[in-house]
Amino acid sequence: MRMIGVIGAGACSHEVYELARQVGTGIAKTGAAVVCGGMGGVMEGACRGAYEAGGQTVGILPGQDKAQANPYVAIPIVTDLGHARNVLIVRSSDMLVAISGGYGTLSEISIALKLGKPVIGLGTWPNMAGIQYVTTPKEAIDAICNLG
Amino acid sequence: MRMIGVIGAGACSHEVYELARQVGTGIAKTGAAVVCGGMGGVMEGACRGAYEAGGQTVGILPGQDKAQANPYVAIPIVTDLGHARNVLIVRSSDMLVAISGGYGTLSEISIALKLGKPVIGLGTWPNMAGIQYVTTPKEAIDAICNLG
Amino acid sequence: MRMIGVIGAGACSHEVYELARQVGTGIAKTGAAVVCGGMGGVMEGACRGAYEAGGQTVGILPGQDKAQANPYVAIPIVTDLGHARNVLIVRSSDMLVAISGGYGTLSEISIALKLGKPVIGLGTWPNMAGIQYVTTPKEAIDAICNLG
Amino acid sequence: MRMIGVIGAGACSHEVYELARQVGTGIAKTGAAVVCGGMGGVMEGACRGAYEAGGQTVGILPGQDKAQANPYVAIPIVTDLGHARNVLIVRSSDMLVAISGGYGTLSEISIALKLGKPVIGLGTWPNMAGIQYVTTPKEAIDAICNLG
Repeated sequence: MRMIGVIGAGACSHEVYELARQVGTGIAKTGAAVVCGGMGGVMEGACRGAYEAGGQTVGILPGQDKAQANPYVAIPIVTDLGHARNVLIVRSSDMLVAISGGYGTLSEISIALKLGKPVIGLGTWPNMAGIQYVTTPKEAIDAICNLG
Repeated sequence: MRMIGVIGAGACSHEVYELARQVGTGIAKTGAAVVCGGMGGVMEGACRGAYEAGGQTVGILPGQDKAQANPYVAIPIVTDLGHARNVLIVRSSDMLVAISGGYGTLSEISIALKLGKPVIGLGTWPNMAGIQYVTTPKEAIDAICNLG
Repeated sequence: MRMIGVIGAGACSHEVYELARQVGTGIAKTGAAVVCGGMGGVMEGACRGAYEAGGQTVGILPGQDKAQANPYVAIPIVTDLGHARNVLIVRSSDMLVAISGGYGTLSEISIALKLGKPVIGLGTWPNMAGIQYVTTPKEAIDAICNLG
Repeated sequence: MRMIGVIGAGACSHEVYELARQVGTGIAKTGAAVVCGGMGGVMEGACRGAYEAGGQTVGILPGQDKAQANPYVAIPIVTDLGHARNVLIVRSSDMLVAISGGYGTLSEISIALKLGKPVIGLGTWPNMAGIQYVTTPKEAIDAICNLG
């Protein structure tokens, strides 16, 4: 199954949540799964959008308990690896969409670019040479489709 | 989603493969997902049984590439953690079925018992106090159902 | 530097602690470092014996804070990996001494035997084909020296 | 023991190698250990400077074999975790010095800032709010001393 990572802030505004939700819906409609860190904010928005559109959602959790997952994670992966699980999100994704986000997201973008994985950026860390920046969820989905 | 781990030898006889396949089929029929290490032998047998019965299959892979997964893994998790990924298989499982297996499987049984997760044993490491031993795939599925 | 892993119960009797301490002292006298999980019980005994004999001690900790280390760990490695750090103890050791211990120790023995690392057993899990059993700290140190 | 992380490019110019070496020497003279990824380039320069000044050096290696370590690593930690070991370098360091570096280094800087660890930057990723930038190895060591 095609796996699209969605990375971003664990706590975010309603507006950013809705962007993530639309991205999640769009990913589900392409037939791909959403992979993410399984927590709140952008991760929940993306899972919710995909889940409500009938798509698959995978949450790679940092802690010891799957109860940590947001309610829209269908497949919880419990790692107990803390931030080291960020690398697993990147490795398990064919490409990634970064939405907003702080230093945790930057660590994921960095590993993705290190590994040569495509990264689509929507309102995230600016001016990074390897990121393909877009300005709307629709453009993010178009970019995913163009990347094959 | 309920997640049942299946652990065991990465290379095995046809007979053991068929046992794993029947366990996988039985798990799928209970509506649970099969979680495993995603490789060959018992892991492939369990995934195949579940996959062909329409169930969900998750492979938590040790290497860097999802091409490493057996063909019946629907959701590949790429960890690049080597044997450390064994702990993730255990943590992501609500209970586990151990079928045959060598030292890698024993490390997984040990972590499962350490964490207090139920372990059902079918032709695996003998005489371990924490394992609930069964002798057929049907008994393994019955034990899963009885564990709730 | 030669690195000798010492694995065993995180809580233990005074007698077992003293065995571990003598093993730690003996390892230091061979010029090797003690590698362990950095916590209490057997791990502390081994570190203490080595530390007080002027040897090097490395603790590969499961949590987020080096304050978790016992007072005789000179080099704390903070992993936040939980039980997955067990694999790092094994991989970082040229050979291992298992003293007493429960399921966590069994997981480490299993990984060590899987990787073909020599394991010397002192009052630990019995009847495992790959373990070289000894009955005193002195025999454990002799075995280490004989293994080169 | 006080542990100072040195992060940076795994392959670098002679000039950058010499900067790292001077930083390593300075760290050793403060009585602290150098912690790094244990490989070449900046990591080797820092280990060499510390090692030749009689200091302690710890290399947290990504692969399966301690032969991967540069010759100035006294304590090799073998993780087989790939890039996930970057998080362990950060967690094991009381503070970090970033010298030059690409995306791997950026992932380490990100995790360090996420965890609130001080990061001193010498010719590394520019314009990051959390980094204390310096322009010479001497200034880096002064900053380490001022941070306590």
